[in-house]
Parts: sequence; structure tokens; C-alpha cells
Amino acid sequence: MEEPVCYQPIGIIHTPFSEMTGMPIQAVAAKGVVGRIELLPTFGEGLADIEGFSHLILLYHLHLMHDYKLTVIPYLDDQPHGIFATRSPKRPNPIGLSVVRLTGVERDKAILHIEEIDVLDGTPLLDIKPFVPRFDNRETKLIGWFTDKVERVEQVRADQRFQQG
Amino acid sequence: MEEPVCYQPIGIIHTPFSEMTGMPIQAVAAKGVVGRIELLPTFGEGLADIEGFSHLILLYHLHLMHDYKLTVIPYLDDQPHGIFATRSPKRPNPIGLSVVRLTGVERDKAILHIEEIDVLDGTPLLDIKPFVPRFDNRETKLIGWFTDKVERVEQVRADQRFQQG
Repeated sequence: MEEPVCYQPIGIIHTPFSEMTGMPIQAVAAKGVVGRIELLPTFGEGLADIEGFSHLILLYHLHLMHDYKLTVIPYLDDQPHGIFATRSPKRPNPIGLSVVRLTGVERDKAILHIEEIDVLDGTPLLDIKPFVPRFDNRETKLIGWFTDKVERVEQVRADQRFQQG
Repeated sequence: MEEPVCYQPIGIIHTPFSEMTGMPIQAVAAKGVVGRIELLPTFGEGLADIEGFSHLILLYHLHLMHDYKLTVIPYLDDQPHGIFATRSPKRPNPIGLSVVRLTGVERDKAILHIEEIDVLDGTPLLDIKPFVPRFDNRETKLIGWFTDKVERVEQVRADQRFQQG
């Protein structure tokens, strides 16, 4: 049907995580984890006024995911679910989303210092959006299979289940 | 530096909006707007268990944006800001993000019925993630230049400023 869409990464996310095993499974479970965004210098101008925000939405390419599954057993459950009802990385289009804390800006170097980041070191960054609670927060208790699982998000760590092979 | 990353749309978002002018500028300002996602039938299996969620995160390709600007005057202001400090569509990688309400699922047809949608009819969909408040909500008042502008989100509508030309 549709043509493929292609994007050029705008920079790289650096984190302490060199492998998936043991990683936090959500940004909200990555308290105290320090990272750094190195934007391509050509995009530095686009960072003007970003220092006023405490939180950023990062969209990035899950670069180790080279195929996908439509049914997965996610980290927080032992039952299978449709991929679009999970946050698992092995998705048809492996685009990751994390809301991180912005702790510092070096505009001249096109570097952002961040915390609460849950991605692998070297992850290609596609977009940065400012987080605005009035736009982005929703109150709901209807969270499907997560209902009695969500509070384990800080205990459970990633394992090898979504790696290649 | 990095190779381009390419994605194949998983379906199409249908909405009442055939042009940008007059559209809501955020999903949260699109109360009562009814839309429909037509997934490619091959991805229907991935919708299993999605009916338990009240809200979904949609990632989509802003298909009318063929170039970008690093400094823009966004809909909510009359002053210029760096593109990564705005939610404007004319971004280096034009990936849109909307949190919408899920109102119905036709699994056999791979169709989702949604509300509170703020995109053009025919927008190519890249990913669907379940919205989970524990993962996705953040409380902050540090929202930079939006601080005294954000409450106008429901009054202000899109205009032609980000169209081609």
C-alpha cells in the first residue's frame, strides 16, 4: 500500500547500558540513570529554548530489532499479548518512546544531559519533543492486562527474550 | 554518520480533517473528534488484548511535511523557538505523536475506532502503543515558553504556516 518512510537520525543517545539484559524496562523505572544526547552539530540551532523544560519525549530507533513478532510475552507478564497491546521492542516498526528528565544543555556542543533513560548506549535518536503535562498526561485506570502488573515495573529488568535469534 | 532508518506504515488513520487549516493542534484539544484506524490485515493479530485499554499512543508519519525548519514560530506563540522546544510538525524527522481514546475494536477487520484525534485524514500510521499512566504521565510545571500559553490549546487552531512553500 504505502511507500516506506525513511528518517535520518539526528543524533545518538549515550547511556550506561551496553546490553539489554538487566536494563530498566521503562524510563520511569530508570531513576538516577544518567545519559547524554549528542546531536549532530547541524541540528544545534533546533535546541533553542529547550533549557526551560524539565522533561523531554525522545523517539528513537530500536536499532537491534531486525525482525518483529505480532504476539509476544512481555517482561511484565507470563502470558502472550498482541504486540500493539504491549510496550515490547520487537515491533513491526521498532520506534521507542521515553520521557526523560533534562538536567543540562550545552548548546554550543549540541549536547543534552539527561536522566531516567532506559535505552542502549548508541541508540539512534529520531526526534525530541518537549513534554507538556497538559498535552501528554491522561488519567485512566483502563490499562488492560497491565492492571495488576504495572507496579512491578521498577523490580523487573529486561532479559534476552527480544534479542535476535 | 548513521544510516537512514526506514519503516513501512502499518495502516492508515482516517479523520474528518482534509486540510491542516482549522485542525486542533493537539489531541487533547480534539474532544469529540471521531476517527478510525485501518490496519493492514496482516497486522490484525497484533491487536489481541488492545480492547482493554482506554487510551493509545499513536506514532505516525506527518506525510505532508517534505522539509523542515530548525527555528519556527509555533501555533501557540508569536515568537520563534528551536524546533525541538516545540511540537510543530515541520521537524527534521516528521514523526507525530498523539494520545487518543480507543472506543471500539473490530479485530476481524483490523479496524480501531478512536476519538480525540488531531491528524489529517490519510495519515500513515507507524506504531500503536498502549497508554499506561504509570509509565507515561509526568508532573512538572517546567514547560519553558509554554508556561503562559498552554491553556490556549483548545482555542487555537492550525493554520497554513507549516504547509509547503
